[in-house]
Amino acid sequence: MNQTIDVIKQHRTIRSYKDIPVQENIIEELLEVARRTSTSTGLQRASIIRVTDPGIREKIADLCQQKYVNEVPEFWVFIVDTYRNRKISEEKGYISMVGRDMDRFFQGFSDCLLMAQNVLVAVESLGMGGALLGNIHNDSQKVIDLLQLPKYTFPAIALAFGYPDQNPQIKPRMEMNLRFFENKYKDLSPYLEAFKEYDEAMQEYYDLREANKRVDSFTNQIVTRDKNQLAKRRYMLDVVEKQGFILKGDEFKE
Amino acid sequence: MNQTIDVIKQHRTIRSYKDIPVQENIIEELLEVARRTSTSTGLQRASIIRVTDPGIREKIADLCQQKYVNEVPEFWVFIVDTYRNRKISEEKGYISMVGRDMDRFFQGFSDCLLMAQNVLVAVESLGMGGALLGNIHNDSQKVIDLLQLPKYTFPAIALAFGYPDQNPQIKPRMEMNLRFFENKYKDLSPYLEAFKEYDEAMQEYYDLREANKRVDSFTNQIVTRDKNQLAKRRYMLDVVEKQGFILKGDEFKE
Repeated sequence: MNQTIDVIKQHRTIRSYKDIPVQENIIEELLEVARRTSTSTGLQRASIIRVTDPGIREKIADLCQQKYVNEVPEFWVFIVDTYRNRKISEEKGYISMVGRDMDRFFQGFSDCLLMAQNVLVAVESLGMGGALLGNIHNDSQKVIDLLQLPKYTFPAIALAFGYPDQNPQIKPRMEMNLRFFENKYKDLSPYLEAFKEYDEAMQEYYDLREANKRVDSFTNQIVTRDKNQLAKRRYMLDVVEKQGFILKGDEFKE
Repeated sequence: MNQTIDVIKQHRTIRSYKDIPVQENIIEELLEVARRTSTSTGLQRASIIRVTDPGIREKIADLCQQKYVNEVPEFWVFIVDTYRNRKISEEKGYISMVGRDMDRFFQGFSDCLLMAQNVLVAVESLGMGGALLGNIHNDSQKVIDLLQLPKYTFPAIALAFGYPDQNPQIKPRMEMNLRFFENKYKDLSPYLEAFKEYDEAMQEYYDLREANKRVDSFTNQIVTRDKNQLAKRRYMLDVVEKQGFILKGDEFKE
C-alpha cells in the first residue's frame, strides 16, 4: 500500500553484517525516531545504552549466545528507566513508594519495546537490517552489572543493526485467523488440527542459521523450546525486585 | 529522510475520530503488518481481540476513563497469549511448568508491544491516527472478564484508531542526550538543572484535552502522576499470577 507497510512486511532478522559503520547523521535521525515514539502517560521511562566497548560486547555476546553481537556496527540496549523520574521527584522533596511499583515498571518496559520497534522500522526503511534480542534475559543481572545500571532500571530488549551481509528468506508465520478474534477469546481446539497447514509451511522453510537443514514444525518447536529453557530466565522478576521494584500490591505501605 | 521516518516523527496521539469506518482491505493489510512483526524465538505469543460490541466498549471506556473508546472506529486489545502454545504442548503429551514462567510471559508481552507499534505506524502511514492505551491496566481483571480471556493470557496494551477529527500539536519530548548513553548509565544529577530547558518547552505546549490551558512542567507532572496513582494498578502482577503465571524462579518444581 505504501513504502512504510512494504518495509514492515519485508522484515527479516539479520544476523550477519557488513563491516560498514552507520553514519552519525543516521544515528541522529534514529534518535529522533526514538524520541518521537509513544510513551506511557508522557513520562518517557525508557533510556538507551549504546554499547561500543568491545569488552562489554564480548560478554554480552557470550550470555546472549549470539556471536554477531561482537561484529554488528550498532548494539543498543533499551532500558526501563524509572531512576531518572524518581531522582526528579526526590529533588522536588517528594519521596514515595509509587515510583517503584510494577505499574511504573511495565510503563517503562512498554516504552522500551515501542521505541525499539520504531527504531528497527526506521533502520529497515534506510536499507539496513537489524535483530531484536530478548536473549539479554539469559542473564539480566549480568547485563545490569556490565552497563552499570542503577536501581530502578532494568534492561528490556536489545537491538543490533547495520548493513546486512545476508538475504534470508521471509519466515512463515501463522495465519491471523488463528490469533485475531472478535470481542472474546476463541479456543481453537484441537490445535494440532488447526496448525496442520502452518506446520507444513514451516517445514518448507530453510533457516540460514543452519543452512540446508529444514526447520522443525511450529508445534514441535514449542515443545523443544520448553524442554531447553535456560533455568535462569525464570528468575527475571527476582532481578527486577532486586533493582528496587515492588512486585505485589499488598507490599505497599503509605 | 524518507516517508517511513516522516510518519514516525509526526506521531501524535489522536483522541477524536471521524465517523468513518476503516475499510476491510485496510484491516487485512494491518493484520499482515501484525503478522510480520518480530516475535520472540518465533513463537508468536500475542493475539488480538477486536472489540466491536458497544456494551464491552462502554465498560472499557469507563475503566480506561477515555470516552473516545466508545466512538473510535477500531479498538484492538493485544494480549499475551501463552494459552495457545500451552494447549499445543498438551496435545503433544508434554505438560510442564515452563510454559507458565515469567520468561514466557515477558516474551508474549514484548510481542504485543512490538506488534501494536507496527500496526500504529502502518495506521499513521495510511493517513489515519491512533492512540495506544495502557489505561486498560486500571483494571486488568475486568478486561480479562469482559473479553473472556482464558488462563495463560493477559491484556498488554490496546490500540484505538481511525480517521482523525483533530490535529494536535506535536508534544515536546526530552532531548535524547538526557537518555542516550554510551557503555554505561550516566547519572545527570542535579536533574532539576538538567531538565530546566525541557520544563520550559513543556509549559509552552497546549494540550488539546484541556484547550487553552497550559500544561504543567515535566518535572511537576512526575510528582502529580505519582500522587494520583490508582492503587489498583499496583496489583498488576497479582492478576498475572491469577492468570496462571509463576512469578518467581524458586516456585518451580520439576
